[in-house]
Amino acid sequence: MSMVKTDVLIVGGSAAGLMAGLTVKRRHPEKSVTILRKALKTPVPCGIPYIYGTLKTVDKNIIPDDNFIKQGIQINTTAVESIDRAGKTAILADGSRVAYDKLILATGSRPALPPIPGIDKQNVYGIKKDPQYLQELQEVLHSARQVAVIGGGFIGVEMAEQIAMMAAGNGNGVEVSLVEMLPNCLMLACEQEFCVDAENELRDLGVKVLTSAQVQSIEGNGAVTGVKLASGETIPADAVVVGIGVVPNIELAEQIGLKADPRLGVQVDAYMQTEDPDIFAAGDCATKFSFFDGNPSAVRLASVACSEGMIAASNLYSPERKTLGAVGAFGTTVGKCSIGSAGLTTRAAEEAGIPFVVGEAVSPNRHPGSLPGTIPDMKAKLLFREDNGKIIGGHVRGGEATADMVNIVAAAVQSGLTAEQLATMQYATHPLLTASPLVYHVMLAAENAAARLPRNGNSGN
Amino acid sequence: MSMVKTDVLIVGGSAAGLMAGLTVKRRHPEKSVTILRKALKTPVPCGIPYIYGTLKTVDKNIIPDDNFIKQGIQINTTAVESIDRAGKTAILADGSRVAYDKLILATGSRPALPPIPGIDKQNVYGIKKDPQYLQELQEVLHSARQVAVIGGGFIGVEMAEQIAMMAAGNGNGVEVSLVEMLPNCLMLACEQEFCVDAENELRDLGVKVLTSAQVQSIEGNGAVTGVKLASGETIPADAVVVGIGVVPNIELAEQIGLKADPRLGVQVDAYMQTEDPDIFAAGDCATKFSFFDGNPSAVRLASVACSEGMIAASNLYSPERKTLGAVGAFGTTVGKCSIGSAGLTTRAAEEAGIPFVVGEAVSPNRHPGSLPGTIPDMKAKLLFREDNGKIIGGHVRGGEATADMVNIVAAAVQSGLTAEQLATMQYATHPLLTASPLVYHVMLAAENAAARLPRNGNSGN
Repeated sequence: MSMVKTDVLIVGGSAAGLMAGLTVKRRHPEKSVTILRKALKTPVPCGIPYIYGTLKTVDKNIIPDDNFIKQGIQINTTAVESIDRAGKTAILADGSRVAYDKLILATGSRPALPPIPGIDKQNVYGIKKDPQYLQELQEVLHSARQVAVIGGGFIGVEMAEQIAMMAAGNGNGVEVSLVEMLPNCLMLACEQEFCVDAENELRDLGVKVLTSAQVQSIEGNGAVTGVKLASGETIPADAVVVGIGVVPNIELAEQIGLKADPRLGVQVDAYMQTEDPDIFAAGDCATKFSFFDGNPSAVRLASVACSEGMIAASNLYSPERKTLGAVGAFGTTVGKCSIGSAGLTTRAAEEAGIPFVVGEAVSPNRHPGSLPGTIPDMKAKLLFREDNGKIIGGHVRGGEATADMVNIVAAAVQSGLTAEQLATMQYATHPLLTASPLVYHVMLAAENAAARLPRNGNSGN
Repeated sequence: MSMVKTDVLIVGGSAAGLMAGLTVKRRHPEKSVTILRKALKTPVPCGIPYIYGTLKTVDKNIIPDDNFIKQGIQINTTAVESIDRAGKTAILADGSRVAYDKLILATGSRPALPPIPGIDKQNVYGIKKDPQYLQELQEVLHSARQVAVIGGGFIGVEMAEQIAMMAAGNGNGVEVSLVEMLPNCLMLACEQEFCVDAENELRDLGVKVLTSAQVQSIEGNGAVTGVKLASGETIPADAVVVGIGVVPNIELAEQIGLKADPRLGVQVDAYMQTEDPDIFAAGDCATKFSFFDGNPSAVRLASVACSEGMIAASNLYSPERKTLGAVGAFGTTVGKCSIGSAGLTTRAAEEAGIPFVVGEAVSPNRHPGSLPGTIPDMKAKLLFREDNGKIIGGHVRGGEATADMVNIVAAAVQSGLTAEQLATMQYATHPLLTASPLVYHVMLAAENAAARLPRNGNSGN
């Protein structure tokens, strides 16, 4: 069989793998890079919910290979059978072999399915990153009359919103229910008041939102007919979408003798290096630690995967970059409301026993507020450590600029800026783009916190 | 005559004065605060151009006093006649007196008018922050057939755009010309390619853009009839708007014997304190120094004014906060194009003799790019010092999120973040709000620069 040689072999062609490939080419243009992936096409992972309402076809949600091929990256869509670590060679499903100098595992994750009776019934779908499967789900959703979404995290909320939009567009009166175990949707990532805002937006779209609701079983003979809750209530459903989290794909790593944990992923250090110095892992398949306390982190996000893919690729030939650990920076849009979050929520900070001060700002996202399209109550809520005034989290609810405003916070968290610094900085403002400079959200929320923090001042800086 | 006493007296009721008042109330709620201002109403300064196209009335562009009165701030619309520094008392135009403990001068600026023949002709207008004057200008513009705007900085570009929009709305075929002395509009703040984008947007709106064009005189008998250029060309005009910059209002400070420079403003230190320990100055009337080299700065922006107003107010009773110096963080929107800028441009960095590396990123502001409303070529251009990798400037062209993305840059500049840090951070992304995490603009531009900077790595952090 054929034997090819590549300098860098990447197993997995989604966020972490693609970013790793691009990074190698950027930093070591002379190195050959091969990405192995099973799927013929890779969906944009975060775009999957938008297939169902906004985009309307799976084909519009594909990461184009061109951008990677143009950089000289080889893409090979043969599955990997095994890896000969001693011989530094991958053996593919068709028997062909790819010898490598450095290997990056970016095997991703798969949807977690709860171990409840009936989970294997027909028309119960996880959110697999597989175009054909997603297409099949679309057909099922199109003919469904009652859809239940299990899990009120980002993916569940976005799926419920998009299915409701699709239904509204079709005018076919589909009923959508969203079932969340915790007291609020989005609760692990977002401030409670913003979770409530998101729930209200879903309700405005006609979604039945059930919180503090535990699924007991999935009912039906063959095909699903309903979702039974611990309360005894049964939600009628002819299609069920499960979005309760992901499981890292560690099988290949385990098979070749690398340490891996079924929940936490393939063991890596802060350089994203496994115990084999020529093998790195990045993205959903790899272990993560929290930026805040160094403990293992369950955060699985494309943004973290991209950062890790970049870091792994930067360290192949010498240790150059360490990950800061998972921060958790998110954005989402539900109905008319965009919500973003970076770092700790109030709840998470309380649970971690960190004394902190909250600063809030509510102001129009235009100035004057009489400008067309103004959101009158864009809100930022920032959390600062009481002992040193450093920002540990921030949450924004607003319009299109929400995620970028959250990224001011994300950058501030990751570089340890204080309330003093964020309050006294100069920020670009403009009538059609932001709040007034008197009440620019990040500045004002930081200043509101600074006024209640011990006065360290910035005069010593 | 009446004599009242206030703890903090603020002269001037626009950005710096209002921010100073709010800050005193936030940090010292027990102190009484009085704002003295001449005008009955204060226009939103940055909103002034939008009176003419978008808002259509001056009344929609007024800063509401309620927010300040609610905080317990007294607003007194009597003009100040003089100040008795020894007696710490302001004497007002009606003879009444206000005794103060601390005084903040926030007297602002007025439009600069070039010393050219004909500048005093009828229908030649600066951009005064005076509602009645702005209303009068609106009436003149409504009946004008040919409008010339002199000055292609932010205010000139925005005025030209809005007058063109107004004309398009009226269907009355007004011709708008914009005359800029430098080779490009917006050139002092923006990267050249973005200046060109803005000029093209103006041309699309029907504005005649004349660059490298020096105004020699304003023609007409009584009322203006045209603008004569050094080239010999005369642009016919029955109304002229001049937006070439501002002159600090230092008269009151000079009158009471405080050091002040006609171009640079009332002399203050980094605490915004004048030579009189009980008198501070902030905003357009006060001297500024550059964040980058400490030299006197001519930057006059509401965002700088707000920051200074906050800093001045924080230092009244003890030195708590120092200004970092003027950074220059801007945003604007011209036609379909939003442009933002923080810190140095390529040209400014070259002129300052700072060796630097540029990193660019062009990517869609949604992912996948097939989503409706996607701007396919949102662009970020970041400048990093070659010696230490720290960011010294950043420029963004895109949609509604432009200013907030620029504020990631503004925060990074002001806290000295490096290309390494900005490249390896995690950023919130979302299909409907941002680029893909593979190509998020700030990250990718920083990484493109990092790949060409000396490899300091972040492993030592």
